[in-house]
Amino acid sequence: MILTVTLNTALDITYRVRGLRPHASHRVSEVTERPGGKGVNVARVLAALGHEVTVTGFTGGATGRVVQDQLTATPRVVDALVPVTGATRRTIAVVDEHTGDTTQLNEPGPTVTPAEWFAFQEAYEGLLTSATAVALCGSLPPGVPVGAYAGLVRTAKAAGVPVLLDTSGEPLRRAVAARPDLIKPNADELAELTGSHEPLRATQDARRRGARSVVASLGTEGLLAATPEGRWRAVPPARLHGNPTGAGDSAVAGLLSGLVEQLPWPDRLVRAAALSAASVLAPVAGEFDAGTYEELVGRVAVTGEVSAA
Amino acid sequence: MILTVTLNTALDITYRVRGLRPHASHRVSEVTERPGGKGVNVARVLAALGHEVTVTGFTGGATGRVVQDQLTATPRVVDALVPVTGATRRTIAVVDEHTGDTTQLNEPGPTVTPAEWFAFQEAYEGLLTSATAVALCGSLPPGVPVGAYAGLVRTAKAAGVPVLLDTSGEPLRRAVAARPDLIKPNADELAELTGSHEPLRATQDARRRGARSVVASLGTEGLLAATPEGRWRAVPPARLHGNPTGAGDSAVAGLLSGLVEQLPWPDRLVRAAALSAASVLAPVAGEFDAGTYEELVGRVAVTGEVSAA
Repeated sequence: MILTVTLNTALDITYRVRGLRPHASHRVSEVTERPGGKGVNVARVLAALGHEVTVTGFTGGATGRVVQDQLTATPRVVDALVPVTGATRRTIAVVDEHTGDTTQLNEPGPTVTPAEWFAFQEAYEGLLTSATAVALCGSLPPGVPVGAYAGLVRTAKAAGVPVLLDTSGEPLRRAVAARPDLIKPNADELAELTGSHEPLRATQDARRRGARSVVASLGTEGLLAATPEGRWRAVPPARLHGNPTGAGDSAVAGLLSGLVEQLPWPDRLVRAAALSAASVLAPVAGEFDAGTYEELVGRVAVTGEVSAA
Repeated sequence: MILTVTLNTALDITYRVRGLRPHASHRVSEVTERPGGKGVNVARVLAALGHEVTVTGFTGGATGRVVQDQLTATPRVVDALVPVTGATRRTIAVVDEHTGDTTQLNEPGPTVTPAEWFAFQEAYEGLLTSATAVALCGSLPPGVPVGAYAGLVRTAKAAGVPVLLDTSGEPLRRAVAARPDLIKPNADELAELTGSHEPLRATQDARRRGARSVVASLGTEGLLAATPEGRWRAVPPARLHGNPTGAGDSAVAGLLSGLVEQLPWPDRLVRAAALSAASVLAPVAGEFDAGTYEELVGRVAVTGEVSAA
C-alpha cells in the first residue's frame, strides 16, 4: 500500500451562501463535508486511481470521528490515524453563489502533546513495513517540532521506502537536508527554499540541498522536473477555470502512483499534470473529473532531456 | 421540572478572526462551541437560576452528539432530545477582533421526517406528565408542519401544564389561536402578528387573538406586559453594550422561573428584564453575568396598573 501522512488533518466544510456580507446574517443553502488536509486529499485521489492507501496523522474529537467515518467509507482507503486529546480542526470555505469566490476560515487545530507525537512516530514506523511509498504532506500542527518531517524522512529512508515531501517554510528546509526522494514545491515554496525566483535554477538548487528529485508545480505553466534521470517540463493544453484548491495534491498523487508503478519520468509528469488540471473542475479538493483526466492524459505536452549516464 | 422545546437545536460555534474580508483566507484565533437554539439557551439560564430543566427537540449526527455531551455536562439539565437521521445544524458567529462586529452563518438543519415528528410528539406528551411548565421556542426545522406549535400548545393545555411560546411568523399566528398562557414576541414579531406597530395596542390585540398573557420585549425600552391581572412596563436602568443575542431567551427564562415560583407579575418582569440586560454582557447566548443580574434586580423600574377584579 501507499502511505500518506497528514499531521494537520481537517474536516473540510463548504458552505454556499447568497452574497457574503461582513456583519450580516446568512442562511447557508448547501453544506458539504469532506475529510481534508493535504495527505488525505492525496490519498483520496490515489484510491480513485485504484491504489490501496493507508492514511495516518492525528485525529480527535467529534470532527475527527466524522473524518474517520468518511475515510472508512472510501473504497481502498484504510484509516490509521492516531488519536489525540484535542479536536481535529475544521476548515470552512464560504462560496458566494453570485461571484463564485470563496472566503476561507481555518481553525488552528489541536495542540499535539509530546506523548502523542511519540505515539505517532511509533505507529508510522510500523506502517512503513508494508508501504511501497510514503507522502508527507502539509503544515505541522501546534506542538509538533519543526524538525518533524526531517525525522520522518530519515525513518522512511532507513526502512527503504521512497518518500515524497510536500510542505513549506522551515519544516521543508530542514527535511530537504534529510534527503527525501522527491519534493513538490509550488513556485512560492521553491523560491522561499532556494532564494531564487528562477524555477530552472531553483529546482537544481533544491536538488543540491538534498532532494533527489524536484517537481515544481507552476500553476498554468505546468510542472518542472529536475531529477537524476533528466529534466522535463509538462504543460496541460489549456487553462481550466474552477477551484484550484487541491490541484497540488492531485499532482502529488499522480507522481506517487507513477513512482510505485515504475513509470518513466515523462509518463509520471503527464499523469500528474493531467490529474492536477482535472481536479480544477472538481468542486472539492481530493477529487477530480475523470472524463477530463482521461482526455487530458493524451494532450499534455512534455519536453525535456535525459541526463547523460 | 421545567420543560423546554427546541425543534431546531444547533451547535453554536464562535470564531474570533482579525478582520473578516470576503474572498480572503482567515486564521481563526479562538473557537468556542455551545449547545444552541432558543429553548436550549432558555434551559441553560433556568439551570443557572437553580431550576431543574429537561431539554427536548431533535438531535442528529456528530454535531448532535456534541450538543448532547455538553447538555449532559450542564448541572440541573436533563437531555431528552429525540434522535433524527439528519445532522443537527451548526451556526457560526464570526467575531471580528478589530470591530467586535459579528457575521453569522446559519446552516438550515436536518429535514424532519413524518415518523420523526410523530416520535417527538409521543416523547413530548410523556415529558409533560412531570413538567411544571413548558417553553416552546424558536423556528421550525424543514419537515415540521407549520401548525406544529398550535398542536403542542393544545397538548400542554390538555395536560394542565402552563405553556410559554416564543416564535414568529405563521407558526406563531396559528399557535396563538390555540390559547397559550404566555407569548413573548419582540417588536417585529408583535407587529407581524397584529399588524400594529404601536406596542400597547398590539399587546392587547395579541391577547384578543388567544394569548392569555403577552410580554413584548422592546430592546432598550424593556418589557411590556398585558395580562389578565394587569398591565406593566419594566425598564432596566441603563443601556448595556455587548452581545444582544440571547437577551430574549434570558427574558423567557426569567418569566418562566417567575411563573413556576408563583411570583407576582411585577417581580417576574423585574427578573426577566434584569436577566435580559445581564445576558448582553455575556459572550454567548444562554449565559448571563451573575453580578450584573444581582445588581440590576434592585434597579429595574416597573410601572403599571392592576386590572379591576
